[in-house]
Amino acid sequence: MNTTTEFLDKTHEPLLQSWVESANNPRSDFPIQNLPFGRFRTSSNDPWRIGIAIGDHVLDLLSAGVCKDIDINTLMSIPKHERKNLRQALSLGLAVGSDHKEIWSKHLYLQNEVILGLPCVIRDYTDFYIGIHHATAVGKIFRPDNPLLPNYQWIPIGYHGRASSIQVSGHMFKRPWGQTKSLENDQPILTPTQKLDFELELGVIISHNNDIGESIIIDNAEDHIFGLTLFNDWSARDFQAWEYQPLGPFLSKNFASTISPWMVTLEALEPYRSPFIRQKDHPEPLSYLQSKSNQIRGSIEINIEVSLQTQKMKSLGDSPEIISKSNFSDAAYWTLAQLVTHHTIGGCNLSTGDLLGTGTLSGSSTQSAGSLLELSENGKKPIKLKNGEERSFLEDGDEIIFEGFCEKEGFRKIGFGKCRSTVLPSNSRS
Amino acid sequence: MNTTTEFLDKTHEPLLQSWVESANNPRSDFPIQNLPFGRFRTSSNDPWRIGIAIGDHVLDLLSAGVCKDIDINTLMSIPKHERKNLRQALSLGLAVGSDHKEIWSKHLYLQNEVILGLPCVIRDYTDFYIGIHHATAVGKIFRPDNPLLPNYQWIPIGYHGRASSIQVSGHMFKRPWGQTKSLENDQPILTPTQKLDFELELGVIISHNNDIGESIIIDNAEDHIFGLTLFNDWSARDFQAWEYQPLGPFLSKNFASTISPWMVTLEALEPYRSPFIRQKDHPEPLSYLQSKSNQIRGSIEINIEVSLQTQKMKSLGDSPEIISKSNFSDAAYWTLAQLVTHHTIGGCNLSTGDLLGTGTLSGSSTQSAGSLLELSENGKKPIKLKNGEERSFLEDGDEIIFEGFCEKEGFRKIGFGKCRSTVLPSNSRS
Repeated sequence: MNTTTEFLDKTHEPLLQSWVESANNPRSDFPIQNLPFGRFRTSSNDPWRIGIAIGDHVLDLLSAGVCKDIDINTLMSIPKHERKNLRQALSLGLAVGSDHKEIWSKHLYLQNEVILGLPCVIRDYTDFYIGIHHATAVGKIFRPDNPLLPNYQWIPIGYHGRASSIQVSGHMFKRPWGQTKSLENDQPILTPTQKLDFELELGVIISHNNDIGESIIIDNAEDHIFGLTLFNDWSARDFQAWEYQPLGPFLSKNFASTISPWMVTLEALEPYRSPFIRQKDHPEPLSYLQSKSNQIRGSIEINIEVSLQTQKMKSLGDSPEIISKSNFSDAAYWTLAQLVTHHTIGGCNLSTGDLLGTGTLSGSSTQSAGSLLELSENGKKPIKLKNGEERSFLEDGDEIIFEGFCEKEGFRKIGFGKCRSTVLPSNSRS
Repeated sequence: MNTTTEFLDKTHEPLLQSWVESANNPRSDFPIQNLPFGRFRTSSNDPWRIGIAIGDHVLDLLSAGVCKDIDINTLMSIPKHERKNLRQALSLGLAVGSDHKEIWSKHLYLQNEVILGLPCVIRDYTDFYIGIHHATAVGKIFRPDNPLLPNYQWIPIGYHGRASSIQVSGHMFKRPWGQTKSLENDQPILTPTQKLDFELELGVIISHNNDIGESIIIDNAEDHIFGLTLFNDWSARDFQAWEYQPLGPFLSKNFASTISPWMVTLEALEPYRSPFIRQKDHPEPLSYLQSKSNQIRGSIEINIEVSLQTQKMKSLGDSPEIISKSNFSDAAYWTLAQLVTHHTIGGCNLSTGDLLGTGTLSGSSTQSAGSLLELSENGKKPIKLKNGEERSFLEDGDEIIFEGFCEKEGFRKIGFGKCRSTVLPSNSRS
């Protein structure tokens, strides 16, 4: 169902081609219809530059004369109509036949020859919990009698997370140490986690601030969203079970998170908007969370996939294996606008570069679960890989790769790139 | 019991006097033995400058030639021995008879004639829960059968908080809106909070980073602490009760927090260090949280008081009334070093300017409770003020003022200044 025709413009035109040849490959994540923003540099001593991904390349916006000498957070905070103008200008300049080709082509770099950074300076990070299938499945494990708490259908449940340990795709991290306690023992122990897990999420990046004390009404909420990324909120399930009451997850989540390097703008996702369907047995939300636009086009059809490449696969040259396929619109109980509005209803001030994680986006089937906790039923049913290996939770050397993309007949694919990270062995402790 | 003599130097000398006369007043929070750091400016358009409080004044460190043109976070990240050298230099320069008097006196401003800012750029904010009397009292209200959860005596329970809404003493904030649900009703409502509360905390400010993946061992943990502040973690108890399961407090805490403008260094607090006493019926912590120094001098004798000035008191010119008197060492179940070490045990990277809240520091008696939730037993027994007013929770126009100070015979008082903020009426909503 296409309910968004009125919001489309020529930047979405499926037949639009770029003079950057690799962008015209139908399999590219970054056609001229996408134009996601991020940061790059050519040497680790240089400052970050603002870039957009186009095909296999990144265009340096400052050198190409597209923007002034500002940091990306400043660029992200411009008003929505200026963001749209910038998108139009980029689309025109990169299109076949553009006069800009001669100059801009001098400011293109191959993505695999530059260093891609965190897409922006991330300020506060909030993690939501909008995947209702995930919330239900995890609830069954931690609270068998009471899986989905009564507040779930009324409040977009969220909590504050750790911003400092968010790293860009491609990093590695050590298996964390922490406390866990088994039912048989009186005392906890300190141990490297035995239940290391991924969480398949999208990241929502905030564009411009609201003043403290002023909430953002639902009809304005999407204007405060700059774009989306893939996001992996790594979790140590054994630490989580022992520490999370009464104030929520802490060390089980703050050792590392991984974000993809490109912010795909809401403008680029326009062709993939869809109605937000609330099941009949779910209550209507309170009025501050309701809007007509939210119902008509509150969702976005984004496919998200998880692949695992074990140490053994790497050493044998085997490709990663897909272990889950989900879709944002199937998984989400709340819309992105509802997250922004709820976050600010008490006057909390969002800032440019804030990251809102959606929470784990598990679909309704077992094959679409967004964590190993669900895929392996907390280790009871290890998943079987094609090469004969099994996984309950992650092992050292495992790499987890998220990919996200929108596809629809008659439109160009919009991709998110990759969000990948590898587990290293834990530090030794004497 | 004075167990810290070996750590004292001439900057702690009780008889040391300053050529800044107001610093020699025995009632001053800021004698030459204190020298807390903060930020100030003379006009709201100017950049922040680094200052130290001395008596009624603030000394501009850049103009006085004491530090280079850096921001305060950079200054805070210098190694501990350099911090000590800086303290020595400031003490010498401000002492009676110093050659610096002629120049430095030109760079003194009256504190009440400048704008005091957040003491530094606050990066991530973590709130702990180390007040065991508070945890027990609150637990009784929310979980009568199960007030203190089994993890409390093993883990310094903490969770991530909202950094953007932390404001400096003197601000006002609007009573927040949010969701609450009464037992009688099937559905929640959106309402201005009816249970607005303060939380009496200390703030711990981090000096220098640890690398991600590297934990800070307990014997090095205090080196990563720059100083302490007063901290008020405002809370909406009705929102908290409805939203906090399963992932912890969110909107009930993120509408505003208040921090005092001066960071009192650990060096200044040396004369007030005391043994950390663990009750006999409490288990020994796991070994990563144990150190001999932690036992011998892990605590600090800091008095903290809460005053309330209602709208009525203000209009009649009445002084604020003290409603609680507590002490950090009586309230805290964990030491500051244990907080830093636990936070990083899984490899989480702390950054310069991170704020660790202690959690509410209620003493063992009702009169020393650090929140109205406890003082009024969740509204069942409103506190009676001398002017005949009563309070279960805060009303519009109420101002809450925290003060903190160390006092011991033979030593100069070390004060924290004030941490104050006033409740404004909520926004209207159509």
